[in-house]
Amino acid sequence: MSAASDAAAAAGRYRPPSADRPRTITVLGATGSIGRNTLALVAERPELYRVEALTAQRNAAALAALARTHRARLAVVADPAAYRELAEALAGSGVEAAAGEAALLEAAARPAEWVMAGIVGMAGLAPTLAALERGAVVAIANKEPLVSAGPLVLETARRSGAVLLPVDSEHNAIFQALADNPIAAVERLVLTASGGPFRTWSLERMAAATPEQAVAHPNWSMGAKISVDSATMMNKGLEIIEAQRLFGVADETIEVVVHPQSIVHSLVAFTDGSFLAQLGAPDMRIPIAHALGWPGRLATGAPRLDLVAVGRLDFEPPDPARFPALELARRALRRGGAAPTILNAANEVAVAAFLARRIGFLDIVRTVESVLESLPDAPVGSLEAVTAFDREARRVAHALVEGGPPAGRRKER
Amino acid sequence: MSAASDAAAAAGRYRPPSADRPRTITVLGATGSIGRNTLALVAERPELYRVEALTAQRNAAALAALARTHRARLAVVADPAAYRELAEALAGSGVEAAAGEAALLEAAARPAEWVMAGIVGMAGLAPTLAALERGAVVAIANKEPLVSAGPLVLETARRSGAVLLPVDSEHNAIFQALADNPIAAVERLVLTASGGPFRTWSLERMAAATPEQAVAHPNWSMGAKISVDSATMMNKGLEIIEAQRLFGVADETIEVVVHPQSIVHSLVAFTDGSFLAQLGAPDMRIPIAHALGWPGRLATGAPRLDLVAVGRLDFEPPDPARFPALELARRALRRGGAAPTILNAANEVAVAAFLARRIGFLDIVRTVESVLESLPDAPVGSLEAVTAFDREARRVAHALVEGGPPAGRRKER
Repeated sequence: MSAASDAAAAAGRYRPPSADRPRTITVLGATGSIGRNTLALVAERPELYRVEALTAQRNAAALAALARTHRARLAVVADPAAYRELAEALAGSGVEAAAGEAALLEAAARPAEWVMAGIVGMAGLAPTLAALERGAVVAIANKEPLVSAGPLVLETARRSGAVLLPVDSEHNAIFQALADNPIAAVERLVLTASGGPFRTWSLERMAAATPEQAVAHPNWSMGAKISVDSATMMNKGLEIIEAQRLFGVADETIEVVVHPQSIVHSLVAFTDGSFLAQLGAPDMRIPIAHALGWPGRLATGAPRLDLVAVGRLDFEPPDPARFPALELARRALRRGGAAPTILNAANEVAVAAFLARRIGFLDIVRTVESVLESLPDAPVGSLEAVTAFDREARRVAHALVEGGPPAGRRKER
Repeated sequence: MSAASDAAAAAGRYRPPSADRPRTITVLGATGSIGRNTLALVAERPELYRVEALTAQRNAAALAALARTHRARLAVVADPAAYRELAEALAGSGVEAAAGEAALLEAAARPAEWVMAGIVGMAGLAPTLAALERGAVVAIANKEPLVSAGPLVLETARRSGAVLLPVDSEHNAIFQALADNPIAAVERLVLTASGGPFRTWSLERMAAATPEQAVAHPNWSMGAKISVDSATMMNKGLEIIEAQRLFGVADETIEVVVHPQSIVHSLVAFTDGSFLAQLGAPDMRIPIAHALGWPGRLATGAPRLDLVAVGRLDFEPPDPARFPALELARRALRRGGAAPTILNAANEVAVAAFLARRIGFLDIVRTVESVLESLPDAPVGSLEAVTAFDREARRVAHALVEGGPPAGRRKER
């Protein structure tokens, strides 16, 4: 059973938020980009939401300010060292303050109908699972739960009846385009990719690319890690895995098309020849608004697409020679088990090494490939197994990048 | 209440056709382009359909062949003079033969769950109403019922619980993009227009355009009348009216964007900033397949869109100075009552006069405008009222075009 077909079936069980019956929400990662955009939309329609819990890694001052503004019941910093600052900032506010890993899990486990899983990296996995375990509607904004722990996340959601709403713009587009169509009516999923800053660069030029060049994304405003993933197109490789998890289709059904303007966020091709696509300005508030309003639509002030002003949309095939991350991610998906966990972990280490100028741009994907080849397979059916494989892949990747690029592979192919 | 919201609510009452429970269908206008494409799709999956009745204007030989192939129960020619030929061609086949207007209405009234209303022109109105009166699912492929008799058609469908499925590619696209979203969540409907063969022509060049130049449509294979409507963009004007009828939105909510490649068939903009669009190869089998499979999807061999092969999609604003038909249609829609009936009837006469080289290309819309200005308003709540206004508008238009272009307006503005 796929998360998407679950959600279609579940839509009938849920009502959109209304002033008569506000939706109780929790935002995990409230001070990050996704969290702030979520709360900005909530602030546009405060009568529709009641905030249960907000969490942050360590930015106590920002978290306290958001918790006061949104009258949250609970605010949690993951880092215990930030507890005192949070407690002091919330004194007299009526907002409960807490800190540490256990408090973070408790925040996720509190009875909010809707949870934004907006914590970056593997740190988001355990709280996301805690929200899924109690059957919440979980808006998934980070890739790690589905890429590194896909089978575990899906099995947890299936057991509890939780609903997964994808917030990544591509998967949100597919989710919207699917609407109430059964997965059996899907012929192909077409993930669009901007192509990143090196879309038109030669392999020779890419070999000499600097971190500054790699983080200059043409359309989206994103963090350094994700920008580099966009430059290697590993981002799209991870999204192939994410799409396979979410929608339960065969790997070869998922196609990638380069679309430099980032206006068509993805498409679904149906068995009758119709394609449905979601389009919009490249702004994360749009997919977040969809998740906040689901199964209805939330009227927001998010920027509107002006097709005539955009004027032109282009589509081209991705180049497998310059962007080998796409095929590497497909290989990890086909191998299954721990392979996607290893892919994701090794990529994080390799990107950090590139940003620290310890390896070249083309070495990122080579490092990931080497780690993937050097580690064995195994199922990852528990949080402990996922964490162990993640740690081991990081260890091997660190050893590789600290010893320089993988031996014997410095030359261009 | 709008037809689209009716259909969304009705989807739960219907099941897609299946081999266990084949869908009984009737095709009005079986020998035309829409009818033939419908039956070609039915022939791909004969186990899903049982053909009740097929009708044609006068092509008895073609109708008899289709009726035999599809084992129809009844075949009707509207023209009584063709009855003998039909009866002879069907002798021994077990298919009942009939002819004349009453037989045509009886064919539409027979208990088929699904009816394709594919009869061109005003002749299709009465049989379409007959199918709607008994609460059928009616796939509407001709513009006349909704443009000329919109309120009557909608009221008939509302009373009986009939479902209208639009087959025009633009309205079918909007219907698909709406999916299960409520009309209240719609911010805008964006109808795409190819711009026709004169998209880039100057007004001076358009004034001298010949019928041969006007019927050379860049993307779709269509009849001469519709091709000329595409060249004047009256086609899109009629579609604005049709969309207002089908989806119950305000006139100013409906936008027209020129999209020369005819790949994005139309879009819906929602209140949360998301746009949903239907795309596909420009082939009528795709929207027909959607209607045949609704509320499911029919797997067909219709041509597939290859976005990478298309490569580029353009969008530009329509030019109101060169294409005044758009604003004229909006005026008729706002005026309401008989104005859309008059617009449609006068346009048919003016296009025929242009094709017969009696008036110039730019005189088409001028003629329609003159007829619209010279006739009074009135409600059109009955078939008789619609027919009377249609006839009167044709009479006035004939008088105008036979006297040459409207007096005093021969010069370019």
